Amino acid sequence: MTAIDLNSDLGEGFGIWQLGDDEALLDLVSSANVACGFHAGDPTVLRRITEQAAERGVVIGAQVGYRDLAGFGRRFIDVAPAELTNDVVYQIAALDGFARIAGTRVRYVKPHGALYNAIVTHAEQAAAVVEAVRLYDPRLPVLGLPGSQWLVQAEAAGLTTVREAFADRAYNPDGSLVSRRLPGAVVHDAEEVVARCTRMALQGTVIAVDGSEVDVRPQSLCVHGDTPGAVRIARQVRAALLAANAHIRPFA
Amino acid sequence: MTAIDLNSDLGEGFGIWQLGDDEALLDLVSSANVACGFHAGDPTVLRRITEQAAERGVVIGAQVGYRDLAGFGRRFIDVAPAELTNDVVYQIAALDGFARIAGTRVRYVKPHGALYNAIVTHAEQAAAVVEAVRLYDPRLPVLGLPGSQWLVQAEAAGLTTVREAFADRAYNPDGSLVSRRLPGAVVHDAEEVVARCTRMALQGTVIAVDGSEVDVRPQSLCVHGDTPGAVRIARQVRAALLAANAHIRPFA
Amino acid sequence: MTAIDLNSDLGEGFGIWQLGDDEALLDLVSSANVACGFHAGDPTVLRRITEQAAERGVVIGAQVGYRDLAGFGRRFIDVAPAELTNDVVYQIAALDGFARIAGTRVRYVKPHGALYNAIVTHAEQAAAVVEAVRLYDPRLPVLGLPGSQWLVQAEAAGLTTVREAFADRAYNPDGSLVSRRLPGAVVHDAEEVVARCTRMALQGTVIAVDGSEVDVRPQSLCVHGDTPGAVRIARQVRAALLAANAHIRPFA
Amino acid sequence: MTAIDLNSDLGEGFGIWQLGDDEALLDLVSSANVACGFHAGDPTVLRRITEQAAERGVVIGAQVGYRDLAGFGRRFIDVAPAELTNDVVYQIAALDGFARIAGTRVRYVKPHGALYNAIVTHAEQAAAVVEAVRLYDPRLPVLGLPGSQWLVQAEAAGLTTVREAFADRAYNPDGSLVSRRLPGAVVHDAEEVVARCTRMALQGTVIAVDGSEVDVRPQSLCVHGDTPGAVRIARQVRAALLAANAHIRPFA
Repeated sequence: MTAIDLNSDLGEGFGIWQLGDDEALLDLVSSANVACGFHAGDPTVLRRITEQAAERGVVIGAQVGYRDLAGFGRRFIDVAPAELTNDVVYQIAALDGFARIAGTRVRYVKPHGALYNAIVTHAEQAAAVVEAVRLYDPRLPVLGLPGSQWLVQAEAAGLTTVREAFADRAYNPDGSLVSRRLPGAVVHDAEEVVARCTRMALQGTVIAVDGSEVDVRPQSLCVHGDTPGAVRIARQVRAALLAANAHIRPFA
Repeated sequence: MTAIDLNSDLGEGFGIWQLGDDEALLDLVSSANVACGFHAGDPTVLRRITEQAAERGVVIGAQVGYRDLAGFGRRFIDVAPAELTNDVVYQIAALDGFARIAGTRVRYVKPHGALYNAIVTHAEQAAAVVEAVRLYDPRLPVLGLPGSQWLVQAEAAGLTTVREAFADRAYNPDGSLVSRRLPGAVVHDAEEVVARCTRMALQGTVIAVDGSEVDVRPQSLCVHGDTPGAVRIARQVRAALLAANAHIRPFA
Repeated sequence: MTAIDLNSDLGEGFGIWQLGDDEALLDLVSSANVACGFHAGDPTVLRRITEQAAERGVVIGAQVGYRDLAGFGRRFIDVAPAELTNDVVYQIAALDGFARIAGTRVRYVKPHGALYNAIVTHAEQAAAVVEAVRLYDPRLPVLGLPGSQWLVQAEAAGLTTVREAFADRAYNPDGSLVSRRLPGAVVHDAEEVVARCTRMALQGTVIAVDGSEVDVRPQSLCVHGDTPGAVRIARQVRAALLAANAHIRPFA
Repeated sequence: MTAIDLNSDLGEGFGIWQLGDDEALLDLVSSANVACGFHAGDPTVLRRITEQAAERGVVIGAQVGYRDLAGFGRRFIDVAPAELTNDVVYQIAALDGFARIAGTRVRYVKPHGALYNAIVTHAEQAAAVVEAVRLYDPRLPVLGLPGSQWLVQAEAAGLTTVREAFADRAYNPDGSLVSRRLPGAVVHDAEEVVARCTRMALQGTVIAVDGSEVDVRPQSLCVHGDTPGAVRIARQVRAALLAANAHIRPFA
C-alpha cells in the first residue's frame, strides 16, 4: 500500500485579512505549512492554526519566507545569506513556541513563495536556509523540489530531505515547475489535477508540458486552498487517493 | 555580602540603525534585556547579542514590547489582551531560538517601554503578558516594578517575580516612577546616580521627589546605555557597587 | 428635495489580501473614504481605487489612520500629537498624488477606526489631525461625528465640517455611538437599517438605544461594505433614499 | 566659471533611530535627496528635513526606494513593474506634501540603494520608475548614472535627465561603479576624494580602477554624510570646489 503525505499552506492571513479556508484544509491534509509572520501570519493566526492542527493530529511545518508582507513573500529579495539564516531561525523559533503551547512541535521546514523558487537554483540562499535548520534543530526534515539546491545542500548537511510534488502545477521536462509567469503554469481542471495526483502518488511520475514523463516520486503532495475551488479540488484529490488505496499520512 | 543584578536594554538596533553600545554594556551587566523584533531588534541583531551575551555569561531575558517600530514601543497601544498574549509568546519564542543556538536559553521576561508602563496599572494587559509567560514557560521569572499589576498578577499565577529599581529615574513617594513627561524624571548627574544605586542595592531604599524614603528592595538595578554618557555612568555604578562589596550577579 | 451624501470605507486591502467589494460600493456611494497605507491600502490599491472612483465621479476622501497594519487601525495608539500631525499629512499627500494622476484631488478627510473614535473626545489628538488638514490644505472639508472634538476644533480652526451619521450603528442618547464592545452596537437587520437611514436623511433624527430621539442632521451617511450582506444593505439604503426623493450627491 | 550641484542622502533616520548628520550636510549641499518612508524616513523626519532644507534654500529631491526598512533599501527586490510605479508615486507624493508645507516642492527624483543599482541595467524596473515620474509630474528632472537604463529611458520619455558622479566611489572603465562587494569600491582617503571631485567637476573625468580616464561630465556630485568622517570630507570637497572657482548651485 502506498503512503503519501498531503501538505498545504495555511495560516496566511494577517490581522483583519484572511486568506484561504484554513479549517477546511486542516480536515484534508496531513501536514500544515504554517506561515510564520514574515510574508503572512500574525501571532494570533499562529496560535489558532497550531492549536487546530494539533487537535486534528495534523503535523506542523514552518513555512518560512522573505520579510515582505506587501508582496506576500512572492518577490525575490537579494537578502545576504547570513541575514537570511537569521530570518529563517527567527521564523521557525517563533512558530515552534506556539507549537509547544499546543502540545506539539514544528516537525519540518518548507520555504514559501519566492524563497522556495529562489533556492531551487540560488546556491547561497539555499545554503543559508539549510544553515538555519541545522542551527535550530538538525533533526528537522526539509520539504522541497527534487533536485533543488535546497534539497541537495540539505542532504549534504546531513538533514533529512523530503521530496514534494505539486498537485496543480505544470512541470518542465527537467522536473522544474513551469513559471507562474507563463500560460498553463497552473492546472485548473479538477479532473486533471486529480488524475495527476494519483499518478504521482502511485506511479511516481508526472507528464511534463512537452508530453514526456518525469520521475518525481513524491513523499508529499502539495495542494492549494486559497480559493473555494481549490478546497473542492483538494477534497477530490484526497478522496481519489483514498479510493486508490493510498494511505494519507504525515511524512514526519 | 549583598548580591545585586544589573540589567540593561540591549539589541535595540534595527537593520542599518544602531542604538546604544551593546558590547560595552555586556561587559558591565549581569542580565541583558534583549529586544525581540517588535519595537526593535531584527533577527541578525538577536543572533549577535545572544552570542555575545552567552560568551560573557550574561543572562538573557526577553524584552517584549508592542508591535511598533515607528514608535520604538514607547506608545501605549490598546491591544486586545488575547492578541497581546500571542504577541508576547511570539517574541519570547523567537528570541529563545537564538538563545538555544548560542547554547543558553531565555531566562526571564521584562516588558519594554509603554508596555512596561501600561502594565503597572492596566490589569487586562498585565494579565495578558502573565498568561504569555505562563503558556510559554511558567518557570521563567518576570522582572518589574514592585507593586505593579504585572508583578502582582504574575505572583498570583505562580510565576517567580523579581523586583527591579531604576538607576537614573526619579521616584514618586508611592514607588512609581516620575513620568518622563515631567521635568526631573531622569537623573543625569553621574554622582547622584551612583549614590542612588549603592543606596538602593545596600539599604533597599530610594529618596523620592518629595524627600521621603521609599522602600524598593531591588533584586536588579536597571542601567541605561543608549548614550555614551550612560555607558560611563553604568561603569561607575558597577565600580561603586563592587567597591561597596556588593556582588553583581544574575538573579536568574 | 433632500440632498444627502453616501460615504463608505474603500481601498482597505493590502498586498494579496482583499477586504470588501470596492467596485460594488463605488456604484452605490457618492464619496469614497480611501485608506492611505497606514492601517490598510498599499500604493497599488490606492492607484486602482482612485482611478475607479474618478471614472464614476465618486468623490475621494482621505481615510487616515494610525500606523497599524496588524491591528487595522482599530487600536488606540498614544501617538504624540506632533507625530500624529505628520502621519496624517503623509497619508493625505500620498493619496492626493494618486488622485491627481486620476485627474481629480482628495476632497475631504475622514479619520479611520480607533483614530476616529479617539478624537471624539481626545482633544490633543483631535487638534493634531486638524492641524494636519490645515497645513496640507485648509480648504479640505472634514467629515465626522457631530459634537466631536474633531469637528469642534476643525470648525474653530476655520475648516469646513461635515456631519456624518452611521447607517448601521446604534446611538447613545447624547449622539455618541454605542461602543462596539457592547451588544447591539451594530444594527444587522436590513429593514431597520434602511428605515433608520431614511429617517436620518429626511428628518435628521435617529432613535437612540433608550428610545429617545437624537438630532443628528447628517450631511453624509456612512454605509459599510466589508461583507456581502453589507453591500446588499447599502444597495437597499440607496434605493430607499432615491424612492423617498432624496438626491444622493457628494457633499464636497 | 563651472557650476556644479552637490547632492547628499538625507532624512534616513526612522523613529528613534538616526543616521548621519542631516543638519551638517544641509549646510554643505545644494540638493537634498530625502528618504520617503519606504527604506527610511518617517513622516516626522520628512517634516523636519523639508523645513530645514527650505530654510537654507537647499533643493529637495525624492529619494525613492524599495519597501524594505529591514534592509534599508539595499537589497534588490523583484517588484512587478506596475507595483513599483505605484510605490514610487506614493513616495514622491508623500514627500511633496511636506515640501509644499515648507513652502517649496519636490524638484527632482533620485532612486536609492538597490533600486538605483538595479535600474542601471534592469529595463523593466527602470521603465517603471520613469513611468512614476511621468505620471506624477513630467517636469521633474531625474538624477542618475550616465548611460543607465534609468537615464536613457527617462530621456526617451521626455523627462529632463541630470548626470551624477560619486565623490567617493571607484569607477569601472565603462563608467559603472565598482560593486560595493569588491575591495576598493569606496575611496576613503580624504585627499583623494577631494582631488577626484575637483577633477570631475572641472574636467568632467574620473580615473577608473584600471587607470583609464572616464568621461562622466557630472551636473551633480554625490557626497555621503553617514559618518563623522564623511561629513568632514564633504566639507573639504565643498571648500576645494569653491577654491577652484566652481559655483555650487542646485541643478534644479
